[in-house]
Amino acid sequence: MSAGRAGVFISFEGIDGSGKSTQVRRLADHLQARGLRVRLTREPGGSPGAEDIRKLVLEGAGDRWSPETEILLFTAARRDHMERVILPALAAGEVVICDRFADSTRMYQGLASAEMRALVDQLHDLMIGREPDLTLLIDMDPEVGLARALARQGGEERFEGRGIEWQRRMRAGFLDLAEAHPDRIRVVDGAGEIDAVAGQIATLTDAALT
Amino acid sequence: MSAGRAGVFISFEGIDGSGKSTQVRRLADHLQARGLRVRLTREPGGSPGAEDIRKLVLEGAGDRWSPETEILLFTAARRDHMERVILPALAAGEVVICDRFADSTRMYQGLASAEMRALVDQLHDLMIGREPDLTLLIDMDPEVGLARALARQGGEERFEGRGIEWQRRMRAGFLDLAEAHPDRIRVVDGAGEIDAVAGQIATLTDAALT
Repeated sequence: MSAGRAGVFISFEGIDGSGKSTQVRRLADHLQARGLRVRLTREPGGSPGAEDIRKLVLEGAGDRWSPETEILLFTAARRDHMERVILPALAAGEVVICDRFADSTRMYQGLASAEMRALVDQLHDLMIGREPDLTLLIDMDPEVGLARALARQGGEERFEGRGIEWQRRMRAGFLDLAEAHPDRIRVVDGAGEIDAVAGQIATLTDAALT
Repeated sequence: MSAGRAGVFISFEGIDGSGKSTQVRRLADHLQARGLRVRLTREPGGSPGAEDIRKLVLEGAGDRWSPETEILLFTAARRDHMERVILPALAAGEVVICDRFADSTRMYQGLASAEMRALVDQLHDLMIGREPDLTLLIDMDPEVGLARALARQGGEERFEGRGIEWQRRMRAGFLDLAEAHPDRIRVVDGAGEIDAVAGQIATLTDAALT
């Protein structure tokens, strides 16, 4: 892909503590060293409007919003993020790297029940439509991931406080999703050294950009 | 309908300045005098969460949100309003009177294009589902309605500043909707004296509650 053509949309997914944020920055460095223009972004949030909606969802009591209202708000935030940041950057020929995208909604909101999962997918099809060109799923033993997440300062306590059983279900759900979409989602073993993981990701991405 | 049974859901619709708010209060007085328990509410807003979303939509520049993001936010607000206010009141046997509901979204957001109208309807079917048992459409000459709206203090300037041509399209759109849903939507001539209009509305509502 040359910088003059339409851009490429890459998302990172994985359980909490899988090292996504570190690897997002490493991939950005790698691609910039190749001469590509890179736009780093993240969800939930990623545009001024989406950040305002993110605040509305994450602030307040955990039962402030029902699961259905919450996915509507996250879909509104994603629509804004797509329109204002992702699609313009792709149109300008940039490589967009997004830390979490729709697959995280499929897990965090969709794992609750088959009905919620169907609703997440229907809302996505109706209001978002587009998937990333490449999704890098960093797979990680949840015990290791949770220990790493708890060792960090800050973070989204609402999501990261759900414990090891939840993380196990998330990991299995992400791996199922990867099996269902083998052309889009590539699984990366996140257990190794940071440099080794970054190397795997660079190789997979270079292949996808060819 | 006795107060012991499931409640009845009534919405009021009409262009700006059609006298909806006055007539909502008059109908509430009438039904309370009949011994019914009445819950007055309004959209956009109507529950604490929906009011927060309403503020997010209406504050800031007119182009802060795209039309698609705006209907997602209004749908999130409506879902919260339904779950937290309307459905519990109906379950408790109350008569819920709502100043504007989904038909206003069909007009304010849906009149922009056939695509937007389809999106509004699909989102409603997916996330809201329920329609009012009775919708009272107060029909009004837009010149009269606009003069009344401008004479009032405050109000939603973003919606009420669109001028006479917009109000004419809204009126025609509401009348088309009433023609398409004759069992649910009853058209009331809003041009008469307040008492006369209130009398028409009380008669229509009493018939629907029998």
